[in-house]
Amino acid sequence: MSNKTYFVTGAAGFIGSNLVDHLLARGNKVVGFDNFSTGMTEFLETASANPNFRLFKGDLLAETAALTEAMRGADFVFHLAANADVRFGTQHPRKDLEQNTIVTYNVLEAMRSNGIKRLAFSSTGSIYGEQKTFPTPETAPFPIQTSLYGASKLAGEGLIQAYCEGYGYQGYIFRFVSVLGERYTHGHVFDFYRSLRKDPSRLQVLGDGHQRKSYIYVKDCVEAMLIAIERTNEKVNIFNLGNDEYTEVNGSIGWITGHLGVQPKLEYSGGQRGWIGDNPFIFLDTTRIQSLSWKPRVKIREGVLKSVDWLAANEWVFAKRS
Amino acid sequence: MSNKTYFVTGAAGFIGSNLVDHLLARGNKVVGFDNFSTGMTEFLETASANPNFRLFKGDLLAETAALTEAMRGADFVFHLAANADVRFGTQHPRKDLEQNTIVTYNVLEAMRSNGIKRLAFSSTGSIYGEQKTFPTPETAPFPIQTSLYGASKLAGEGLIQAYCEGYGYQGYIFRFVSVLGERYTHGHVFDFYRSLRKDPSRLQVLGDGHQRKSYIYVKDCVEAMLIAIERTNEKVNIFNLGNDEYTEVNGSIGWITGHLGVQPKLEYSGGQRGWIGDNPFIFLDTTRIQSLSWKPRVKIREGVLKSVDWLAANEWVFAKRS
Repeated sequence: MSNKTYFVTGAAGFIGSNLVDHLLARGNKVVGFDNFSTGMTEFLETASANPNFRLFKGDLLAETAALTEAMRGADFVFHLAANADVRFGTQHPRKDLEQNTIVTYNVLEAMRSNGIKRLAFSSTGSIYGEQKTFPTPETAPFPIQTSLYGASKLAGEGLIQAYCEGYGYQGYIFRFVSVLGERYTHGHVFDFYRSLRKDPSRLQVLGDGHQRKSYIYVKDCVEAMLIAIERTNEKVNIFNLGNDEYTEVNGSIGWITGHLGVQPKLEYSGGQRGWIGDNPFIFLDTTRIQSLSWKPRVKIREGVLKSVDWLAANEWVFAKRS
Repeated sequence: MSNKTYFVTGAAGFIGSNLVDHLLARGNKVVGFDNFSTGMTEFLETASANPNFRLFKGDLLAETAALTEAMRGADFVFHLAANADVRFGTQHPRKDLEQNTIVTYNVLEAMRSNGIKRLAFSSTGSIYGEQKTFPTPETAPFPIQTSLYGASKLAGEGLIQAYCEGYGYQGYIFRFVSVLGERYTHGHVFDFYRSLRKDPSRLQVLGDGHQRKSYIYVKDCVEAMLIAIERTNEKVNIFNLGNDEYTEVNGSIGWITGHLGVQPKLEYSGGQRGWIGDNPFIFLDTTRIQSLSWKPRVKIREGVLKSVDWLAANEWVFAKRS
């Protein structure tokens, strides 16, 4: 893995910055690209002190010339930049189209201009829609999308696959469950912690609390991506990344409140689903990635509590996410 | 079906104009929209004489205000406009993204502005990529795209599905095999006829001639779409549309040359596939649409020969497709 140059979009994001640190720690060169719409300079403090790291602030949608220029000389592209919000898609449907689909096209074209042919892409378990098989394998029946986010990631996957066939690219597509851990700034643990910090006496829960979801720890996720890239060599390589278990939202609430020593009144809203298009059960079959001798090291409970502890130690992030 | 107003994008195209004629013949009002990039005014001669038909020339990509205005008052949208070429995607990758993915988004948004919530979409059997099961059902394993065309239609499907879930739309997605018949101006029969017309002594064939494909007759296709819309009422309704059989390219060549009374020397080029990303076998399971009491009336051979006869009677189209 060493002595390569990795180009990372969304480098200042949650997963992106963890990946950057990991790649640099292994002696690689890394070029980061981020528009800092949700990414944070603080996440790149360690990286920025490393001479093997260069950072570009730029817009993947509008600044394609700058993107192409910044990417020059890279060996491999991690395209992690995205609108990662699945919940509010219907409030601004253009956002997913632009930030996830068109931007992926722009990244693929910048690669083409530079003669770079290998990339990894952060897709999502949401892409499976409402399946009947759990854990859900990569070869699940052709899914029906339930969110603009899922649709935009499906489009990104399709584009990458077509570039693999049409232009000889090699693609690694990772379908993540929700990710937890250090620099976690988005999702239910974030929302719950922020709410309990303001008012520990009550907690609003979207849905009935019985939604079942799987979560992966960010360092497990980063490690899995690098293992897949090292150990598989197909034209198109698709991997579910998730944990061996799932939890109910209520279970997660119990861990968080127990850890914080609070006993809020739980106020459920909506029905089975937390929001329109929410999948009440996400649990991915990770047999394929585990066959490469990867295993998740951190269980969901531990990942939730790591997220809480990180948020407690980094409350400055709430001011940035108001 | 009568007394409704149908908005048809790609109204001047092969399938679109056949649909328009059919809808008008059943007493409906039809509003056509076409940029005439490949559509032909000649195909709308009959329709244009009908007071229930209105036609707008406009660009679905750039003229979204005109699109929204033209759509006003429609009950149902048939979104058939597309870049329908699967072969030359890699020569202009932006075209499929724009004409198939972004344009579908524009149509969905124009519907939202108008409060219209029902649409049908022309997708493609190419979306299944290289499957292992033939005939291929709608619930085939999650496919891997092999063409920019397929990827762009996959993205269109995903968008429609997300709008169904997120905004309460009702969507009809039709995955076509190649379509044959009157006004056929694109595909292997067109290419072969044009070539033999110029020089009946030889015929260049892309691939080894053993590619197996299914074809559907355009009037069967139009009828199937209308039956599906009348007889199914799910949120997302997905149907394969194809014939009960398939043929080798060589079989089709035999029918065409026999019909024309020519004996060209066949010159094969490339390997198994006619072009990069060509699927050597397309044959769709149509059990689902047939369960609605629809059956294809025209076999592939007859469809091929109907196309040849129509081309022979309408050689003016070749001047327009040079």
